[in-house]
Amino acid sequence: MKVQPRTLSGFMELLPQQQVMMERVMETMRSTYALYGFTPLDTPIIESSEVLLAKGGGETEKQIYRFTKGDSDLSLRFDLTVPLAKYVAIHYGELAFPFRRYQIGKVYRGERAQRGRFREFYQADIDVIGDGKLDIANDAEMPAIIYQLFNRLGLKKFQIHVNNRKILGGFYAILDLTEQAGDIMRTVDKLAKIGQEKVSSLLTGELGISPDKAGEILRFIAIQGSNQEVLSALEAYRGRNNLFDQGLEELTTVVKYLSAFGVPEENFAVDLTIARGLDYYTGTVYETFMLDHPEIGSICSGGRYDNLAEYYTDKLLPGVGISIGLTRLFYVLQEQKMLNQDLNTAPADLLLLPMTGDLSHAIALATRFRQAGLRVQLYTEQKKFKAKMSYADKTGVPFVVFLGEDEIREGVVACKDMVSGEQTKLDFQGTLDRVRAELDRRSQGSVIQ
Amino acid sequence: MKVQPRTLSGFMELLPQQQVMMERVMETMRSTYALYGFTPLDTPIIESSEVLLAKGGGETEKQIYRFTKGDSDLSLRFDLTVPLAKYVAIHYGELAFPFRRYQIGKVYRGERAQRGRFREFYQADIDVIGDGKLDIANDAEMPAIIYQLFNRLGLKKFQIHVNNRKILGGFYAILDLTEQAGDIMRTVDKLAKIGQEKVSSLLTGELGISPDKAGEILRFIAIQGSNQEVLSALEAYRGRNNLFDQGLEELTTVVKYLSAFGVPEENFAVDLTIARGLDYYTGTVYETFMLDHPEIGSICSGGRYDNLAEYYTDKLLPGVGISIGLTRLFYVLQEQKMLNQDLNTAPADLLLLPMTGDLSHAIALATRFRQAGLRVQLYTEQKKFKAKMSYADKTGVPFVVFLGEDEIREGVVACKDMVSGEQTKLDFQGTLDRVRAELDRRSQGSVIQ
Repeated sequence: MKVQPRTLSGFMELLPQQQVMMERVMETMRSTYALYGFTPLDTPIIESSEVLLAKGGGETEKQIYRFTKGDSDLSLRFDLTVPLAKYVAIHYGELAFPFRRYQIGKVYRGERAQRGRFREFYQADIDVIGDGKLDIANDAEMPAIIYQLFNRLGLKKFQIHVNNRKILGGFYAILDLTEQAGDIMRTVDKLAKIGQEKVSSLLTGELGISPDKAGEILRFIAIQGSNQEVLSALEAYRGRNNLFDQGLEELTTVVKYLSAFGVPEENFAVDLTIARGLDYYTGTVYETFMLDHPEIGSICSGGRYDNLAEYYTDKLLPGVGISIGLTRLFYVLQEQKMLNQDLNTAPADLLLLPMTGDLSHAIALATRFRQAGLRVQLYTEQKKFKAKMSYADKTGVPFVVFLGEDEIREGVVACKDMVSGEQTKLDFQGTLDRVRAELDRRSQGSVIQ
Repeated sequence: MKVQPRTLSGFMELLPQQQVMMERVMETMRSTYALYGFTPLDTPIIESSEVLLAKGGGETEKQIYRFTKGDSDLSLRFDLTVPLAKYVAIHYGELAFPFRRYQIGKVYRGERAQRGRFREFYQADIDVIGDGKLDIANDAEMPAIIYQLFNRLGLKKFQIHVNNRKILGGFYAILDLTEQAGDIMRTVDKLAKIGQEKVSSLLTGELGISPDKAGEILRFIAIQGSNQEVLSALEAYRGRNNLFDQGLEELTTVVKYLSAFGVPEENFAVDLTIARGLDYYTGTVYETFMLDHPEIGSICSGGRYDNLAEYYTDKLLPGVGISIGLTRLFYVLQEQKMLNQDLNTAPADLLLLPMTGDLSHAIALATRFRQAGLRVQLYTEQKKFKAKMSYADKTGVPFVVFLGEDEIREGVVACKDMVSGEQTKLDFQGTLDRVRAELDRRSQGSVIQ
């Protein structure tokens, strides 16, 4: 009796060629984050439920994979922020602040399965955590890093939207709507999805806000234009509320530094409709959209929080972070056929086919190529020549080397370029130079095209 | 009310400097495996219990993290071999065989917690899967790759022990003990742990084997010497059993190719006591020991199996694989202080301290260094000079650059080597050359020393 092999729905499992592309995306993330002085971190996937759910409540709670093992009440992490809070609280004395870490890891949410929704998915996070204080310049560096990363990946048409919740909070205080600010922001957050009219009727209906004030709100969040135009329009509200003024100051600084960091204006926009659903953001907030695919929603979000680890420690640990939903982003890039098909995704650069019974010469040649840095697969199976070549085709290996009695005697390497079909008989160094030049040429492009 | 933050026992969570070393080990693994034409794979951590436990029974079953979510009976993977079997069975038509993959991933076993035992741990596996057949040369390549990997990591005093279960099976058939062969091998497997006398009494006692035959068994597994000497001694048994002869043929070929692959004899040994507890190994088996730390047991094990995915498919998929218990190995390397402390484990190569209120020049300089490939952290906090320098000390960053009005005006870079204390004022290129040279020098060593 066989068991039907299957992978659970909502769990991404890639074919080899796709996985190689995913690894390239991850490698680009790691190297970019490292360029900015972030240290890699790895935390357990399983945590004690008491620790992981210290904050309690929340929309995510019912999605959590929670179970018991022996006497232990355990949960799988549903993001990388709570484990970071735990980590920083435990290791506070051993860390240098500001503490900058990146983490690329799997998280788990038992959402209803549907196309493009994942229950196991990678998040790629960067966070900077201060001890007591954290300068606003960090809020500008975050989107600059994301800009740099997307550039290196080859993603062009994207825009990072920036806002500051203090501006929103201050504005609602001016309208004397502080207590309802959370509800209002959650409603206003839906603007892109449901439109101005529906938002308006939700505000005056469900939330019981006067039509005057609802009008003010809608005029406020409709403020648009270049970043300078938006900032200028906001100046009109200055002087009426401290929180608002502070937020405007922060946002102005972020915008100023963002251009110093070299982020072109087309890639970032002040956007007063961005509030982020999550409660813990207290200042700057980010969302990032693909210009040709707004329907996908934000591919990279985050913001400033006042106190990372308040459920674990009395230390005040303000931070700012940003997170990429990597699995979903990769899925979209695949669906939209945006992954660069010209890159080499074969397991090896060169397949070595021995044409003799004894493998010793082939092993020696493979070793020599490897010492020169080439990824070499030695083909050892006893098959017909045709079957060997069809294997080479199927793996997509760029070069095949044939090693028979003639080549061994003459001390030459017979090498076939599997794309052009061109076959050469050169000495080792000549072959190596040719293969390297061609591999270099084929690895020029970025992952996204 | 604060929740006490803690990490579950049996779950490794490293400090930043240690994590950087772990990342280096992983990167060395990835690049070494890639050199031999293995493709990276990533499979879900959660699988359907029906699929994951298709084989059923087994010692591991009670250690498995198993739970329900909604209507689904789920389990966390306990190795990377069963998910590979599933993967190959599902994607059979899309893969090229021999299929060579590496996977470095976390697996879960709810073992009794004790020092150096982990419930969540990384395994780093390579496997080659054939379609119907797989040449014996692959069995020789596996330890050659492990030898190469350990060499690159800087691990020197290790020995890969190789045996072939067909030799054992054939030998027990000669003694007419085939039915008890499994029990005998499990007993003999304990030789290193419990000694010859105890093994002997277990054989004649529990297993009811005649003293004559027990003596034969003990003489057989006591065969020692150079690899050639052991092979010669085995020749004495040739011609009495087909399985034995086949195993001896295979082992002889593996030994021959291992030297062709450049593995020095001091790093591999034919060892007739190695049987591997697991049922599914059918030919070559490997275990690897650290010569100075035999108490640790095998750090890298594997072998040949006749049929990888028999629970899922009728296809005959023989394979050979080898697995490193990475988390445990890393733990041991730490405990034994074998990790190279001279390597740079700081989050950045260079910490840039702006001495002016405006950050624009500092941002521009940081960008220039990054474009040259340096990992640069821009320090943005408003702190006293002493606090900034103590931050630099604590992160272990090798270089600090000070950027004040003077340096900006003069167009020079003031740079301090944090180890030697030497401070220079050079132009950008001069500083870059100096920093690069020193960083190169400090990254010379291998991870293990």
